[in-house]
Amino acid sequence: MTNNLSKLIEAARGEKESDLLLTNGKIINVFSGDVQNNSIAVSSGYIVGFGDYPAKKTIDLKGQFVSPGFIDAHVHIESSMTCISEYAGAVICHGTTTVVADPHEIANVLGIQGLLYMMESSKNQLLNVYFTLPSCVPATDMETSGAILTSKDIEAFMGHEKIVGLGEMMNFPGVLFRNKEVLAKINAAKKFKKPVDGHSPGLSGRDLYAYLAAGISSDHECNEESEAREKLMAGMHVMIREGTAARNLHALIPLINDRNVSRLMWCTDDRHPHELINEGSIDAIVREAIRSGVDPINAIKMATISAADYFGLNDVGAIAPGRRADLVIFEDMNCPEADMVFSFGRLIVKDGQMLSQIHSPSQVDIRPSMNVDLSSLDFSIPAEGKYARVIEIVPNQIITRQIIVEPSIKNNLALSDVSRDILKIAVVERHKKTGNIGKGFVRGLGLKRGAIASSVAHDSHNVIVAGVDDSDMLTAVHALVRMGGGLVVACDNKIISSVGLPIAGLMSVDTVESVRDKLDDLIAFCHDLGTTLKDPFMTLSFLALPVIPDLKLTDRGLVDVGQFGFVSLFVS
Amino acid sequence: MTNNLSKLIEAARGEKESDLLLTNGKIINVFSGDVQNNSIAVSSGYIVGFGDYPAKKTIDLKGQFVSPGFIDAHVHIESSMTCISEYAGAVICHGTTTVVADPHEIANVLGIQGLLYMMESSKNQLLNVYFTLPSCVPATDMETSGAILTSKDIEAFMGHEKIVGLGEMMNFPGVLFRNKEVLAKINAAKKFKKPVDGHSPGLSGRDLYAYLAAGISSDHECNEESEAREKLMAGMHVMIREGTAARNLHALIPLINDRNVSRLMWCTDDRHPHELINEGSIDAIVREAIRSGVDPINAIKMATISAADYFGLNDVGAIAPGRRADLVIFEDMNCPEADMVFSFGRLIVKDGQMLSQIHSPSQVDIRPSMNVDLSSLDFSIPAEGKYARVIEIVPNQIITRQIIVEPSIKNNLALSDVSRDILKIAVVERHKKTGNIGKGFVRGLGLKRGAIASSVAHDSHNVIVAGVDDSDMLTAVHALVRMGGGLVVACDNKIISSVGLPIAGLMSVDTVESVRDKLDDLIAFCHDLGTTLKDPFMTLSFLALPVIPDLKLTDRGLVDVGQFGFVSLFVS
Repeated sequence: MTNNLSKLIEAARGEKESDLLLTNGKIINVFSGDVQNNSIAVSSGYIVGFGDYPAKKTIDLKGQFVSPGFIDAHVHIESSMTCISEYAGAVICHGTTTVVADPHEIANVLGIQGLLYMMESSKNQLLNVYFTLPSCVPATDMETSGAILTSKDIEAFMGHEKIVGLGEMMNFPGVLFRNKEVLAKINAAKKFKKPVDGHSPGLSGRDLYAYLAAGISSDHECNEESEAREKLMAGMHVMIREGTAARNLHALIPLINDRNVSRLMWCTDDRHPHELINEGSIDAIVREAIRSGVDPINAIKMATISAADYFGLNDVGAIAPGRRADLVIFEDMNCPEADMVFSFGRLIVKDGQMLSQIHSPSQVDIRPSMNVDLSSLDFSIPAEGKYARVIEIVPNQIITRQIIVEPSIKNNLALSDVSRDILKIAVVERHKKTGNIGKGFVRGLGLKRGAIASSVAHDSHNVIVAGVDDSDMLTAVHALVRMGGGLVVACDNKIISSVGLPIAGLMSVDTVESVRDKLDDLIAFCHDLGTTLKDPFMTLSFLALPVIPDLKLTDRGLVDVGQFGFVSLFVS
Repeated sequence: MTNNLSKLIEAARGEKESDLLLTNGKIINVFSGDVQNNSIAVSSGYIVGFGDYPAKKTIDLKGQFVSPGFIDAHVHIESSMTCISEYAGAVICHGTTTVVADPHEIANVLGIQGLLYMMESSKNQLLNVYFTLPSCVPATDMETSGAILTSKDIEAFMGHEKIVGLGEMMNFPGVLFRNKEVLAKINAAKKFKKPVDGHSPGLSGRDLYAYLAAGISSDHECNEESEAREKLMAGMHVMIREGTAARNLHALIPLINDRNVSRLMWCTDDRHPHELINEGSIDAIVREAIRSGVDPINAIKMATISAADYFGLNDVGAIAPGRRADLVIFEDMNCPEADMVFSFGRLIVKDGQMLSQIHSPSQVDIRPSMNVDLSSLDFSIPAEGKYARVIEIVPNQIITRQIIVEPSIKNNLALSDVSRDILKIAVVERHKKTGNIGKGFVRGLGLKRGAIASSVAHDSHNVIVAGVDDSDMLTAVHALVRMGGGLVVACDNKIISSVGLPIAGLMSVDTVESVRDKLDDLIAFCHDLGTTLKDPFMTLSFLALPVIPDLKLTDRGLVDVGQFGFVSLFVS
């Protein structure tokens, strides 16, 4: 380190040539809120000074604006369905140079091995990847996950330099009711003086205070301005989220002002390839915020220094000597769209296009994650009563309703009924070959033929499948398991579209563009089969998540989330 | 820790009675900048919630304002010339509940033992005392200090929970010229992710950038707004200092605004008992700032959350669940003068008066620090030339000028000359009995009779003495050494006033009021002897500091600070 510091000091004093001088830029100063015309000297990947410097190379920024690289304060990279190098390429060309990733999905499948895979494959990327340790693996004990992360696991990793905190504490009942293991995880973060991210939709008043008193210091689940204001005033850092599905920007814009912007930041949480490529990442949020009236400096502070300060990342988030030369260059302050991006002093995006080869992830071994005995699969549902509980989809939301329906019954078996849009749904345990299959019915998927199956099914990521008949469901799951995980559409006992996700059944090894194209195709095929949902796979992926109301299905059966317990499929 | 968290959560949920409910307060919210009428529930010393709560005790705040307790971001407690418990009492009744102390003075005398003494005696105080590790002990190698703190020492202590950073890096040439030991100290702080405080008066441009590139992140030595603005924009947190001597508030007020206030904070650096008692601590700065036009909320943010965030102190600096119930209650938002103060949930100041007995410091052993062979003391100056370099005092500043003077000579000895205000001055090494005595002349002290001596002499704190004749100088130093350190005024071979400072020759064991009264008397006696300086002892204490221009005297001789080297007393 002494050697590094020496080099930077030498360059900053102009005693030796810097690597790069960026001239003629309008530099956005997030400390003062000013914009200044000046040059930036860069050496060994770091900013070393302003003004005229001797340098090996000069790039004329031609009067464009220079912002610190953007920071995504909370993201599940797995939601991009691509590996880290592909994800990195997708976001960095939009100016996101640092992310704080919560490898929560892969940890539910592969545990520590999944965490290590993400940490290992984020090394030597152009993107600066930090992690929070997943706090809730598994989300509940009403499902079979691939792994459990204990407080001991958390404590063992918390000291790592790439770990910047404990990830979203979704188990807020566990906090409020003082579950020992939950508190031990929080204390592990406190021991290392790292923040604990929250996840507390709607939490208010005394329960919110209790959650804060436990040491949880952020939230990214605010839906209403009043909710965000209460949380901010009670001491939370508020991350405003704009994901593919959950979008909170417009509701929360009235909150933002000069006085509180240091406590606010942006995050994407979950973004699919389609939005990442076509819309952008943090830059898209910054643009939309400015368009909606947020002061550009404040929108950029939220995308940079506020997040850096919250996570104690002192070498990113600002254009200042000693910080990484992670920079976004754009023409219009009111519509920041990356013309150039520098990562660690290296020009990697020019005219909005990637220049550098995206680093491949280091070759990291990862074990197969599909562990299903296909021979015993059986989706038949013996009719044990006249009426059944059915999961009713609420379009474009992740909550569901419970309805009671009289299913079609033939030969003592309950069947799908396309005429009433009541389809069979099943969750097949895929981690431990337990043979567990949860079965039930869903309304609102809208398929008229075939079946769809996915190994992306929050949070345990068992195989979820829904369809018109058992045979297509079997076809889909067989194919999915043979692919090592992925998304599948089957019809007439044939696979008509699929996306392989061999990394933990969550992520592809293809390029992000290819994954986007395949996903676009896949969804188009679903629409051909009759669904009217915008993205039936996204809807499907949340039907197994037993922490979101009302009725969900896990590999162990139907869960009434309100009662936080299992219920029978048949009610009489 | 789990147990503590459990208790707080329980209280926050209102499942058990809180210890205290403060009703009817106007609560200053430093996150949003709002003021809200509400109640505050306190349990186990921490804030647990707002609104109505079951509580063992209720205190009606009668509509007064409630601010988080104030934080002094940088202070040398030794400058109060009292021990920590007395200092704590003096500041806490003015609303300062947390200080970040740099035990730089005592470390120069006693090294690690001094540091441990301060840490030990700050335990169980009502005041929340954190420390930065002194980075520059000794300040230079041109003087004999009592101890050396190496980078290994720094690294060994850096992990301690009460250590929040590396103290002011005064040795900026050492940074700029990449002194290995200096960089090793900085890297020790980086290793523990703790900030490095700066001290860089006038540093600008490339040298400032180099200082920042080295990882130094604050400064409290800005004299001009332009200087502070440059430092702020380059990435420094700016501490605005109002000490007894150095006062920068008025010059820097134009800097402060809503957008940068999170990067600004207050500090006292050095305050003597007189100002601490009669004027106040951080509260005095807040009042003066508001009086001078700073928005009250911003002035309070600088006194609270800005400092807490900078040092990563997540349990102070705001009124929020999970933070210490350190609170200041006052009537007038435009003139915050503590009516009540709560420390860790305990009411300790009421009607502006201390209620609680000040905690005594734990009985901490500390070795005597006066190590001088009195028998060999000799202040005579053989006349080795016709002209001599003389230190010329600049009234009320710590810089000096160098002038060349023809001294009075008698029997081949150079003597004081009252008619021209040229007095003898000497620095007697007092740590290692080396017998070192630096001798010279000073103009501007103004004594017509007698001598004054002090064991407070920055930064090595040898004994400094100045006077009209050798005999009174000897009388003063003999008395001072026998007292175990302190401040002495002698005349006609008698001690006419003194303050004993037996703790390292820097601090008294008396009450802060008693020390103030004695100091007031001591200075009055100096005025009787002819000086017109406001505080001749303060002036004297900086005449041995060879890092402040122009001419200074150490135990090893005269130092030309511009040349950073020794020069002879006689020039021909």
